[in-house]
This record gives sequence, structure tokens and C-alpha cells, in this order.
Amino acid sequence: MDARTGLPVVGMVGGGQLARMTHQAAIALGQSLHVLAESPDDAAALVASEVTIGDYRDVTVLGSFADGCDVLTWDHEHVPNEHVRTLDEAGIAVHPGPDALRYAQDKIVMRRKLTELGIACPRWIDLTKAPDPAGALDEFARQVGWPLVLKAARGGYDGRGVWVVADALSAASLIASGTPLLAEEMVAISRELAADVARSPYGQAAAWPVVETVQRDGICVEVFAPAPHLPDELADEAQQIALRIASELDVTGLLAVELFETTDERLLVNELAMRPHNSAHWTIEGARTSQFEQHLRAVLDYPLGTTTMTAPVVVMANLLAADGEVDPPGLDERVHHCMAKWPDVKIHLYGKQFRPGRKVGHVTALGADLAEVRTRALAAANFLMNGTATR
Amino acid sequence: MDARTGLPVVGMVGGGQLARMTHQAAIALGQSLHVLAESPDDAAALVASEVTIGDYRDVTVLGSFADGCDVLTWDHEHVPNEHVRTLDEAGIAVHPGPDALRYAQDKIVMRRKLTELGIACPRWIDLTKAPDPAGALDEFARQVGWPLVLKAARGGYDGRGVWVVADALSAASLIASGTPLLAEEMVAISRELAADVARSPYGQAAAWPVVETVQRDGICVEVFAPAPHLPDELADEAQQIALRIASELDVTGLLAVELFETTDERLLVNELAMRPHNSAHWTIEGARTSQFEQHLRAVLDYPLGTTTMTAPVVVMANLLAADGEVDPPGLDERVHHCMAKWPDVKIHLYGKQFRPGRKVGHVTALGADLAEVRTRALAAANFLMNGTATR
Repeated sequence: MDARTGLPVVGMVGGGQLARMTHQAAIALGQSLHVLAESPDDAAALVASEVTIGDYRDVTVLGSFADGCDVLTWDHEHVPNEHVRTLDEAGIAVHPGPDALRYAQDKIVMRRKLTELGIACPRWIDLTKAPDPAGALDEFARQVGWPLVLKAARGGYDGRGVWVVADALSAASLIASGTPLLAEEMVAISRELAADVARSPYGQAAAWPVVETVQRDGICVEVFAPAPHLPDELADEAQQIALRIASELDVTGLLAVELFETTDERLLVNELAMRPHNSAHWTIEGARTSQFEQHLRAVLDYPLGTTTMTAPVVVMANLLAADGEVDPPGLDERVHHCMAKWPDVKIHLYGKQFRPGRKVGHVTALGADLAEVRTRALAAANFLMNGTATR
Repeated sequence: MDARTGLPVVGMVGGGQLARMTHQAAIALGQSLHVLAESPDDAAALVASEVTIGDYRDVTVLGSFADGCDVLTWDHEHVPNEHVRTLDEAGIAVHPGPDALRYAQDKIVMRRKLTELGIACPRWIDLTKAPDPAGALDEFARQVGWPLVLKAARGGYDGRGVWVVADALSAASLIASGTPLLAEEMVAISRELAADVARSPYGQAAAWPVVETVQRDGICVEVFAPAPHLPDELADEAQQIALRIASELDVTGLLAVELFETTDERLLVNELAMRPHNSAHWTIEGARTSQFEQHLRAVLDYPLGTTTMTAPVVVMANLLAADGEVDPPGLDERVHHCMAKWPDVKIHLYGKQFRPGRKVGHVTALGADLAEVRTRALAAANFLMNGTATR
């Protein structure tokens, strides 16, 4: 509790854009997010008042960071689970806690649990348990066909740690590398969806409308809210899957469930994230309660906010830094021109150094017609990154 | 320019809630507001990364604060005008500048200018220029009648520096105090309105819908957007008055024009403020561009954002700290209950110490029906301050 304000203190481990935007939301609630960042130049460290620079892999650092906080939560999944458990056992409120978090940290643990629960996923096998992984993969491929997908059990994000392999030969070097792997069937999908929900320790849960996410090279580039032309029964099913996972896994805070919609109109769970998520950035302007405010409310065990949309259609487009031909000093001028041309598009810049392909911000456009709103969002995003409205 | 981000640095003199909420808006634009606060416990100092503690009455402090900034702007009107001029003459970008700011700092200078421009105000006289102020007041009272209003030319806000006087006797001690005063007729008003606009150095201007403000003891307690049942021609006139003042006075940044709507349906200008203003707090959720983002865009000479509303009706209710019977340690619990009962009301707490009558936050409710939205906003505000939904 902050003695000056009579309000609780949330500490977030990790200083990226999620912590940056969570700090914005904390300010409205009378709070100031405490941030454990790796560097003073981290996105959140540039804007927060209470910043500790330290290594999240060091349990001593985590412990002393926790000292000034009522609740600890995570900007990313890379905090070692045993450290989260140590903090939890020391009586520190950690949300999500170690038992929930391991399902977001290890895809094999996640797949096994969802399979147990009877929640539909792509068919998969655990290659870490196979005495002969290459043979097991061959056997699996006979059931699901080539190509198939190999995934690192831990540490992947934004397309990293995921490989589509065409045959046994292509898989061999990955298997030989010793990386703990699972194999999944390559599903015929019509698109990707995300069901974002929040859940509090008390057990209250709230869901935003299901969205469509557009990926390029494994990185989310656009989000359409709500997912266009999604039949009501599939939307309901997606929300029910997310709410059930949140409850069964005892998730506290945000839970993003990334889903495949298959060509035969089934839903399969692809990935889980237990933190504010790119698929819900649109909620800042597009919903009555943003995912960042909701995450704070959830981890503080505050009652959750209304999730209704503020416009019929919301499109979020990520700002992915260009391939080097546009230099960062021109950003301010591009912001000028973007604001002049699209006065209704909301810009979010994370203060991050530009590196090709890096997420450095996002834009949000609102309106009534998806094609029109999408055109505006994409044009503004492209202009900010490339100085031209076309990619 | 911040070398790490390639984006400009805005410095705000004053660390109150306006700077606090401007920092929130700056974060989205990739920036981090630099704040010159009086104390590390100031509302903005609690949440901003770049805080200087210093005295805004000291031009040396202002000068070194300005060193790290591309633009200076103001959280309040109390910075001595001669210091603003010194900074301006030293080539520092100050918005609003000294010539504009003096109209918000001195009510006599303001009244004289608006009278020159033919903009309707209450009838008034300058008592500082009268050789016999008591006699001049008597003479003025014969034209406009008692009671009338005495105002301190400088330094008043939230009802301070304004006195309704019933007769010459009541006025005598104020006149004798030597405070520079003006006298105004007591206007028969049906309500108070505010026309909020922003203007950039380039000259672009944007107006939000005209709002009704409800005052109690000279302090704003509620704002209704848009002003209910305001005839289109009066709404247009109010916006035109504000846009004309912004242009004629060369205002840069936010301009709030407080207006009286008289019982005979005329508009008279009451006060001017050249900074984000309580009458536009509703724009955070209620308009596509908030006054805080717009103020930053304006002072940076960025193109301005769309001002359309996000709901048909928006009500803002201020949180005025109770008279001491409710202790601040209970605030966190009241926040819980408030969120449970009104999951759609947006809470804004400023991190300020509670003192009876002090503005410590506000709430915003959105909807379609004024009576319903107002009930929700007021009940939530009362509950947060008093632990009961009724006052």
C-alpha cells in the first residue's frame, strides 16, 4: 500500500510496451506501476516513476523488487517458474501464480493439460519423452502427414521457436540440436482468432469480443474486432474455451487464447499468454475497459470493468519498424503527416529503438465499416513506418 | 528532441492532476512529459519519469528546466508573466506565450480585451484605476444593482478570489485590503457552459461540443456533454466565441472559455483558462481525442485530432474529498465497491492527499440518457468520497 495515496502498488516484472501501457492505466486508478526493467531505455522505464533495473532471472532481485509491492505480475513469460514459486511460497502475491504460469511457459505442459481437459488442439506429440524422437516423428507424420510443425517447448514468441518442416530430413537437425520439442499437425486454417479474457483471484471473469488476428511471418500485424462474420456459436465457443481455461488453470489477470479457425469451421487452441496481449491492444480505445486497466483490476482482485465495444468495428495495426531504409530521425515528421491525414487514427508509440521488423508501436482506427476502417489503420501504420501509405 | 526515441520533449510547469493526465497522453505519443513540480508528492511527480523539483517563481529554475525540453507549457496560470516573457525572448518555445497568457492571468486585462473585441461579458469596471474605488463602485451599483461581484484581478481559482457583495459596506473591507479588484454585475443566469477548443501555433483549431458545467461553492462538480437542450445557434455561438478568442489572443494549446447562459438566452464570457481544464476531463473517454492529447498536439504544432464524441451523453463528476469523516485508508475498499456496483464507470484518482473539498479525482460515465448517466456518475462519485451513494 502506498502510504501517500492509500492505494495498492502493483509491480510488473519486465519493462516492455505491455508494462508501459499498464502504467498508463495505473495512473487513472491513482497508482504508479513499479517496473523491474532490464535497462533504463526499456519502453516502460522511459515513462514510469518507480523503476528498478535488474535481472528477472535472479531470485534475489525479484525478492527485493517485490518488497515495495502489494502484487507482482509479468510483462513476459520468461521469469523462471521456480522463482515465481519461491516468491509465492514466501507469501508474495504473484498473479498469475506459478501453477498457472507454467502452462504459458511450456507448450508441452500446456498441450498435455488442454488434452486432459478435452479442449480441442492440433494433434501433437511430445518429442522429449520419445526414446527415438526421429522414429516417433515419422510415426506421427504417417497419421497427420507432412509438412508438420515443430515447436520449442519453451522460450518462443512472435514466430520464434516455431518451424514448419517438410520432411524427416528437415526435422533431423532440429531434433539433433537437443532443444525440447513438440510436434504438431499442420492444420488447414481459414484464419486465426483470439479470445481475450481476464480473471481475478476471487474467480470473477470477463471476456472481450473474439477478434481476428492477421499474422505475417509469425508476427501479429493486424487485429479486427469483432472477428468479422464469425458465427455466433463459434464466437460463444471461443469465449467459453477461454473462460474455461482461465478457470481450470486458475489464471489470474489477462489470458489470451490464440485459436485456429479451421477450414471446416472448428476451433483449435494454438497458444496461451497470461499477460496483456497484442490481440487486445484495440481495447484501449475500442472497449469501455482496456486490457491494461482490466489486468490491474484482476491482479488486485478488484471487480472487473465492462468490456463492451465503443464502436461497431475496431482495427489495430502494429507498427513494425522498416528494413532500415527509413531512419528514426524522420519519425517525428512522419507523425505530423500521419496526424494531418488521419486525424481520427490513434497513435501509440513505445519509445523503442527501431530495428527491422521490431514492434515499435501500434495504431487504432474505429468506425462502422471494416474495409474502410482497415484501410485507414493500415495506411496510417504504413505511413508511420515507411513514409508511404502503401507497403 | 529525445535522442533515444527521435520524438520531442514537452515540459510542463506544475505537477498537478493536469500534468498527471497529460503525461498519460504523452506516453501514447511515444513521449515522456517532463514535469517541474513543487514537491515529489505532487500528483504528476508520483507517476512521471522526468521530474524536477523546483520553484516556478524562480526564472533560473524555469530556464534550466527548459534546457531539456523542446516546448514549455503550463499546468496552472501562476507562473509570473515576466518569466514567461524572459523564456520566450531567450528563444524557448512557450505555449501559450506571454502575450496570450496574461489574459488568463489577469481578469482586468482579459475583460478589457474582450470588451475591445466586442465579445459579450457581464458589465464590469476596473476598480484599480478609480481614484475613489468606493465611489466608483457605488456609481456602478446604481447601473447594475446590488448585489454585485468583486473579483481579484489575479490568482483566484475554484471560487477563490470571487466575492458576492450585498452592499457598499460589505465591499468596503475588500477595497480597503488593497487587492487589485474588478467589479461585475451579478448576472441572472440559467446555467454555466464551457466551450473548450485547442489551437496550434500554425493556427489550426478544433472544438469539442459545448458542455454544461455545474458549480457548487464556485467549484465545478459536474459536467454534462453535450450541454443538454442547448439550441444549435447558441452552441454554434459559444464555439465561435471560443475559436475567435483563441485566434485573436493567439492562444496555443487548450483554451477553456467559461460562459454564462443568461435567463434571457444570451451568452456572456465568464472566465478563460489556457491549459487543460476540468470542463474537458470527460474527453478522456468521451471524445476520440482527449484534451490532454490535444494539448500536446497543439503545443507541439502537430495537426489536431478528431473531437467527435464516443457516446451520445457523457457525464463527468468530480471527486471532492469529504469533510474528514471518511478516512483515506478506506479509499481502496471504496474503490472495490465502486467498481463492483458500477463496472462501466471510469475512475480517475490523482494520488492527492485528502483535504476537505479538495479535488482528488473524477469519474466519467457514458450512455444515451442524461438522467440515467448522471445518476450513475454521481452515485459512483459520492460513494468513492463518502462511502454512500447519496451525498
